[in-house]
Amino acid sequence: MQAVRLLLVGLGNLGWRFCELLAAKGPEVESRYGLRLLLVGVADSQGTAYNPDGLDPARVAAVKKGGGSAADLPEGRPGERALALIARAEADVLCEASPVNLRQGAEPGLSHVRAALERGMHVVTPNKGPLVLAYRELHDLAARHGAQLRFDGTVAGGLPALYIGQRDLRGATVHRIEAVSNLCTGYVLELLADGLSWDEAQARAREEGVLEADPSFDLEGWDAAAKLVILVNGVMEYPARLEEVERTGITALSGADVVAARREGRVYKLLATADRLPDGSVAMRVAPTPLLGDHFLARLGRKQMGVVYHTDIYGTIMAAIDEPTPLPSAATMLRDILDIYR
Amino acid sequence: MQAVRLLLVGLGNLGWRFCELLAAKGPEVESRYGLRLLLVGVADSQGTAYNPDGLDPARVAAVKKGGGSAADLPEGRPGERALALIARAEADVLCEASPVNLRQGAEPGLSHVRAALERGMHVVTPNKGPLVLAYRELHDLAARHGAQLRFDGTVAGGLPALYIGQRDLRGATVHRIEAVSNLCTGYVLELLADGLSWDEAQARAREEGVLEADPSFDLEGWDAAAKLVILVNGVMEYPARLEEVERTGITALSGADVVAARREGRVYKLLATADRLPDGSVAMRVAPTPLLGDHFLARLGRKQMGVVYHTDIYGTIMAAIDEPTPLPSAATMLRDILDIYR
Repeated sequence: MQAVRLLLVGLGNLGWRFCELLAAKGPEVESRYGLRLLLVGVADSQGTAYNPDGLDPARVAAVKKGGGSAADLPEGRPGERALALIARAEADVLCEASPVNLRQGAEPGLSHVRAALERGMHVVTPNKGPLVLAYRELHDLAARHGAQLRFDGTVAGGLPALYIGQRDLRGATVHRIEAVSNLCTGYVLELLADGLSWDEAQARAREEGVLEADPSFDLEGWDAAAKLVILVNGVMEYPARLEEVERTGITALSGADVVAARREGRVYKLLATADRLPDGSVAMRVAPTPLLGDHFLARLGRKQMGVVYHTDIYGTIMAAIDEPTPLPSAATMLRDILDIYR
Repeated sequence: MQAVRLLLVGLGNLGWRFCELLAAKGPEVESRYGLRLLLVGVADSQGTAYNPDGLDPARVAAVKKGGGSAADLPEGRPGERALALIARAEADVLCEASPVNLRQGAEPGLSHVRAALERGMHVVTPNKGPLVLAYRELHDLAARHGAQLRFDGTVAGGLPALYIGQRDLRGATVHRIEAVSNLCTGYVLELLADGLSWDEAQARAREEGVLEADPSFDLEGWDAAAKLVILVNGVMEYPARLEEVERTGITALSGADVVAARREGRVYKLLATADRLPDGSVAMRVAPTPLLGDHFLARLGRKQMGVVYHTDIYGTIMAAIDEPTPLPSAATMLRDILDIYR
């Protein structure tokens, strides 16, 4: 039995679910994989908690769901920053699940990831920000310190889009990637097609919890563009940057446009595409696109995301996930840990 | 640069395509992965050819496409059996692509795989027979000799169904698997739905090369059942056997049944399912099934295969491949080799 000591930074939607997962799956992970996953430290915006013998993950989840914070745990240190915890804790893996931020240098996530890798900790993260802004730097840093970096949850929730693209397409040239990777816009577009107004659709999406307080991140295509940048870096091995993505959000679209498209058998999706150009560069685009009804990505349901890889030797490979709750996204951290210790 | 010496047994549809692939992708594999793939020996039913410095894979492919055999190569030994080549050749990997045979103890493939593993060679194979009949035995044999066994091409052509199911679902319980993994029946069912008679549909499928000389292997569901057995062994970790599969072929179906289903918005597919039962066992079934039009697998096109995994923590994961030629199936041997030497 190998003990794996985990630090978890960020106890939001994904963080507390990951704690519940550790509590529920711990015994099974021990018996199937010989790994004892020990949550030794957690941090959120209010403080930290650390216990080298292990915190109780079920208790962490319960405290957060009850409106409390890491600082309220018996081992809590109110006011301590995550970065300080990463600096002092003895751990094997940092699970970085702090809020996504594509501005302000992707902070605080980027500093967390850097600090952990510099200490030789492996990092697993569903946080897009650090990867979008510093893909190459973080990989180089990990390699220098003999650490592993995994981020399967950054591109399409719980869909193993990166694993498929990086491992299962080995030997292939990927000519084109198509992805529908943002749940929120898919949901809003479907409501618009049903005839709801923009206001009604946004209100419904907010009730359902798929629309963030600041909806522009999703609706203006930033989220889809960020995911595309990571996919292109990881799968096409091209150093894509966010500012290279030609980006159009769905807010320019009227409800009438969407309804008319449906009448013609087309389905609007916020489609992200990447095309390899003859000069070796990659053209990236995010835009609402009226897909023909028989397109693989046109058929995605309300809580589904998908990706299509067009390759030279493996045909066209399509994958999708039905993700009714954020659990699969949280579970990508478990997948990543088990991949590191396979 | 690491040299990897390959033996290829079976120069049919997949074998010669794999030779072409080696010729076309060799330089890229060297530069991207630091591996020099050296085809040192080949065998077919007429004989063998062996050269420790490497055969020319393009020439092997050309000889086969011209109606010749391994024995016709400059290094050829007419009449030598593959098993003798495996016994005498110095090689690192056996690529076993001899014809699938679920009867006669899966021979000759099973003996080839056993002999190679016993010599400590890794084995990659798209040949279902040995895995269906001796899944556990071959894994134990590989472990005892420190060899790797890969067979990603056995379950759904070039779709990495096993890699997704085994690696990307780590930590999950897979409740149910659904698969449409047989191209031939999908093609025939679609022609029947278009109103063709059984005779016309079979004739068309034969022209297109999707129907074997002995069509019962596909039409009676043996192929789909064999693939399901491997999936269940690999992904559900249950020691499934072929005789446990409740199997109904598509020949019991009349063209009128298929046409009537389409009129009601349903699509007949030869569906393979595996359900985990409360006692831990797995119920397996292959049967023509009228899927609702919005079922993921109902939407597969003529040259597509797909699989759906219902899991506890990763939601529902769906994957499909569009495979217009057998190239992706042949390329699974490259994928498997690159996975062994990653």
